[in-house]
Amino acid sequence: MNDNDDVARLIVSCADRHGIVAALSGLLADAGANIVNSDQHSTDPEGGRFFLRMEFHLDGLAGRRPALEERLAAVAAELDLDWRLTLATARKRVALLASRQDHCLLDLLWRWRRGELPMDVVCVVSNHSDLEREVQPFGVPYHHVPISAESKAEAETRTLELLAGRVDLVVLARYMQVLSRDFLQRIGAPVLNIHHSFLPAFAGGNPYAQAHDRGVKLIGATAHYATEDLDEGPIVEQDVSRVSHRQGPEELARIGRDIERVVLARAVRWHLEDRVLVDGNRTVVF
Amino acid sequence: MNDNDDVARLIVSCADRHGIVAALSGLLADAGANIVNSDQHSTDPEGGRFFLRMEFHLDGLAGRRPALEERLAAVAAELDLDWRLTLATARKRVALLASRQDHCLLDLLWRWRRGELPMDVVCVVSNHSDLEREVQPFGVPYHHVPISAESKAEAETRTLELLAGRVDLVVLARYMQVLSRDFLQRIGAPVLNIHHSFLPAFAGGNPYAQAHDRGVKLIGATAHYATEDLDEGPIVEQDVSRVSHRQGPEELARIGRDIERVVLARAVRWHLEDRVLVDGNRTVVF
Amino acid sequence: MNDNDDVARLIVSCADRHGIVAALSGLLADAGANIVNSDQHSTDPEGGRFFLRMEFHLDGLAGRRPALEERLAAVAAELDLDWRLTLATARKRVALLASRQDHCLLDLLWRWRRGELPMDVVCVVSNHSDLEREVQPFGVPYHHVPISAESKAEAETRTLELLAGRVDLVVLARYMQVLSRDFLQRIGAPVLNIHHSFLPAFAGGNPYAQAHDRGVKLIGATAHYATEDLDEGPIVEQDVSRVSHRQGPEELARIGRDIERVVLARAVRWHLEDRVLVDGNRTVVF
Amino acid sequence: MNDNDDVARLIVSCADRHGIVAALSGLLADAGANIVNSDQHSTDPEGGRFFLRMEFHLDGLAGRRPALEERLAAVAAELDLDWRLTLATARKRVALLASRQDHCLLDLLWRWRRGELPMDVVCVVSNHSDLEREVQPFGVPYHHVPISAESKAEAETRTLELLAGRVDLVVLARYMQVLSRDFLQRIGAPVLNIHHSFLPAFAGGNPYAQAHDRGVKLIGATAHYATEDLDEGPIVEQDVSRVSHRQGPEELARIGRDIERVVLARAVRWHLEDRVLVDGNRTVVF
Repeated sequence: MNDNDDVARLIVSCADRHGIVAALSGLLADAGANIVNSDQHSTDPEGGRFFLRMEFHLDGLAGRRPALEERLAAVAAELDLDWRLTLATARKRVALLASRQDHCLLDLLWRWRRGELPMDVVCVVSNHSDLEREVQPFGVPYHHVPISAESKAEAETRTLELLAGRVDLVVLARYMQVLSRDFLQRIGAPVLNIHHSFLPAFAGGNPYAQAHDRGVKLIGATAHYATEDLDEGPIVEQDVSRVSHRQGPEELARIGRDIERVVLARAVRWHLEDRVLVDGNRTVVF
Repeated sequence: MNDNDDVARLIVSCADRHGIVAALSGLLADAGANIVNSDQHSTDPEGGRFFLRMEFHLDGLAGRRPALEERLAAVAAELDLDWRLTLATARKRVALLASRQDHCLLDLLWRWRRGELPMDVVCVVSNHSDLEREVQPFGVPYHHVPISAESKAEAETRTLELLAGRVDLVVLARYMQVLSRDFLQRIGAPVLNIHHSFLPAFAGGNPYAQAHDRGVKLIGATAHYATEDLDEGPIVEQDVSRVSHRQGPEELARIGRDIERVVLARAVRWHLEDRVLVDGNRTVVF
Repeated sequence: MNDNDDVARLIVSCADRHGIVAALSGLLADAGANIVNSDQHSTDPEGGRFFLRMEFHLDGLAGRRPALEERLAAVAAELDLDWRLTLATARKRVALLASRQDHCLLDLLWRWRRGELPMDVVCVVSNHSDLEREVQPFGVPYHHVPISAESKAEAETRTLELLAGRVDLVVLARYMQVLSRDFLQRIGAPVLNIHHSFLPAFAGGNPYAQAHDRGVKLIGATAHYATEDLDEGPIVEQDVSRVSHRQGPEELARIGRDIERVVLARAVRWHLEDRVLVDGNRTVVF
Repeated sequence: MNDNDDVARLIVSCADRHGIVAALSGLLADAGANIVNSDQHSTDPEGGRFFLRMEFHLDGLAGRRPALEERLAAVAAELDLDWRLTLATARKRVALLASRQDHCLLDLLWRWRRGELPMDVVCVVSNHSDLEREVQPFGVPYHHVPISAESKAEAETRTLELLAGRVDLVVLARYMQVLSRDFLQRIGAPVLNIHHSFLPAFAGGNPYAQAHDRGVKLIGATAHYATEDLDEGPIVEQDVSRVSHRQGPEELARIGRDIERVVLARAVRWHLEDRVLVDGNRTVVF
């Protein structure tokens, strides 16, 4: 839809204070923009942090963007705002990392092909070759970068060569390798992970076996930004499904796969639409 | 919290057009208000309808309200806005109508006593005397207005005498009588009803028996504004619960009671907080 | 697992009466079988209908099956039971019918390839050629049988030629054609359909547009056996997802696709495992 | 319903082995009983544990019970079964322990008054007097047993005097005291607790604040049997509700109350109906 050419999103976070909305909506109105959607959140009107996402329509946006950004920069300096302006048509470049399990990877590729996920899939990187044939019909490069205990550093270097500077988002679609702090610092893009439990319950390995042992009545999945503390990063989305004594660990894993793929797909979509704002170890999802 | 004294909500609906948010947030900033929450929705940026709810804090609100309303009226006239300003501390006066089932009625009274529902309960009206003893500990007047086929008009007149002009909201907490068009017009306040099915499935009487006959795998409840077309008014909230072949109609009713009371309580709370805006036969819930 | 070779399921339905479980479990114990799972349901102990599914392990089942069936037939005659015995390893032959939407079809094929669905996919039949390329990598024959108003009878005949006698189950994976009564009678296998609403709400065409118009707060999907009364057959599974005023009809359809494919996959799986017993227009799902 | 006089439940757990169902259903059929419901579960047909719940109808049950139990004892000895027979009409004697929060306590009392929970409420015990007035209309004795750091042992002794030997179940309806190992051993009845989180996430104190800090997108509640390891006992039921960045810790607590009372009520109901069988640190819920 060529209308979308003229839609942008203004993302702001800052210390909360009077007049932010007025200043920004005034600036946009003045520029002739029409605010289509607007969400805001304050963790505390007194001394808290303020988050805002405004989606607006402005005829001839491309040409008028430099002037608009100049005015925004002036207001931002005055009010001490962190901000960015993204175009609705600017598709983020995304790398998908996977291991042997296909469900999250194929689900993302399929949604992308259907047009549900506004992104460019740069490539798939996997430490196994198992999924190469499944990925092939989607027309996306598949890089097999094997990892062993000895080759881990080398494999991360190879992955960085493939991705750093070339992607805006890395999605760990059941990638069963822990990324080093160094990798996370050098990749230069946010990394979204899907953990197969309702965090913080059952962090670490084999969460479905843990869940079965503990006898929980619901199992879940958690999409979160990866940080150097494994399973500790800001949570973007979670969901659960009911289970009972009738299911063993393998059936929990089967049921869990349906939760994992939906939770990850939601998180990816929200990230692509600039809906997820990080607030320390928490997220605001507009 | 006395801070709440200085919090108000501006509710607006109008034809969508450029500059509404800018005009209103500018006006509020200019008046020294701090916008604490803001939600907006447009059914269509071109020719659609626009809805807004802004919650703001303004020191000394009570004294400054008349001047603020004057300025709002001027902007509203210019932009052709429907608007109202409500104070967070202005508790709505509510009448609860019930029949023989106690679960919705007691749940609302209990939440009210706990401070979960910011309202003044004016009275309970029932066509039966069954629940008088249960209501008594809450210290709320209980009016028994029996209804028979012959006395229906008379009973409605009696109910109107009790309520009209004295309440801001009428809640039908499993009140098993159909209200006449005349009553709805003369009551002068919105009427919230809880229907014990996932509307539009199983409208009309005995929905749990209907649900059992049809063999559905989920049952639900629907809170909606009452209109003269029974079960057809704007839906405010719905929820469902899983059932199976193991439950007969009576067990469906038991499970359903838990859904009904939660769904109705949410709808009442959202109404009291001015979060529900009616858009024809649909609602916007901020 | 070769153990599975020795697992069978006994499925029984009959008028409820004393001693059925005792007779059947006695017979199985006597034959040396170990009951692994057992589910039973009575719609009413007095004059109701009784349903049973017993999964049992019997060493050397293949060789001993004829004798076992003979004994079962004798008991069944005595107690007037409808019964069948299926082997856990006997994979049902399944045809998938689709139109242009790929989500339900691909989801079933993925699950099948992953080993989640114990079936043999005989073929895909579609009234469009759109999905041929997507199906190709799965190695399943794709039959394009176009249908127009004039060619409907002919197309059904062609489909019957392809399927009748060759399949144990037909799955309508968003097949957007109404099957004639004649087709349903001649196909000789149960037909599972996915309807994209929470039936009985929004039967008929375009349910997401209907749901949007009515302003519901949840949308759903329903898997049911197809009967000649469209959207009226016995319901096998349903689920819902929360929506709000923020979603238009297209977004409802997008959210709905996730529900559709999960609901259909569950229903297919349960059918393949002989867990679904039909009770008039209702189902018992063990 | 006087029919219920003739309904009993046979609860069995044992090492799994051939012929258990046959032996028991044969015995019951032989005695003229009709099995109304039957559930069974094996953790592993080879070397696992077997659980069974059979609900049956037997005319003149009261008079024939001794003979039936004699025969069951014989079979049980032979097959090495743990078993018990309970009458559907035998209402369990229950004590409710609470502190200051009323929601779980009142919810159980309402359901009991409404006939949803087949139990006799022996008394309410609280370490505070706050809820005495709310409990009074239900006609249940209210014992105020204050607890301080110094008086804890004494208070437990007092509580044991009130309850030991007089109750079949103790329900901790948001009782904010840790019970000693000694108390749990001497109380002589199972103790059901409601924990206000989705265990094992957020064990310990103040789980809603923990949940808020971690930024989870769902909060939950867990009903479990109390053991000396706090928050570690077998889980009976869990449920969750969706939350977002918009809710602070107090709102999480408000939303959580609705989950807590429903989860606890389900667990109590299932316990009263002899549906919960303990399997080490897990439960089987039929």
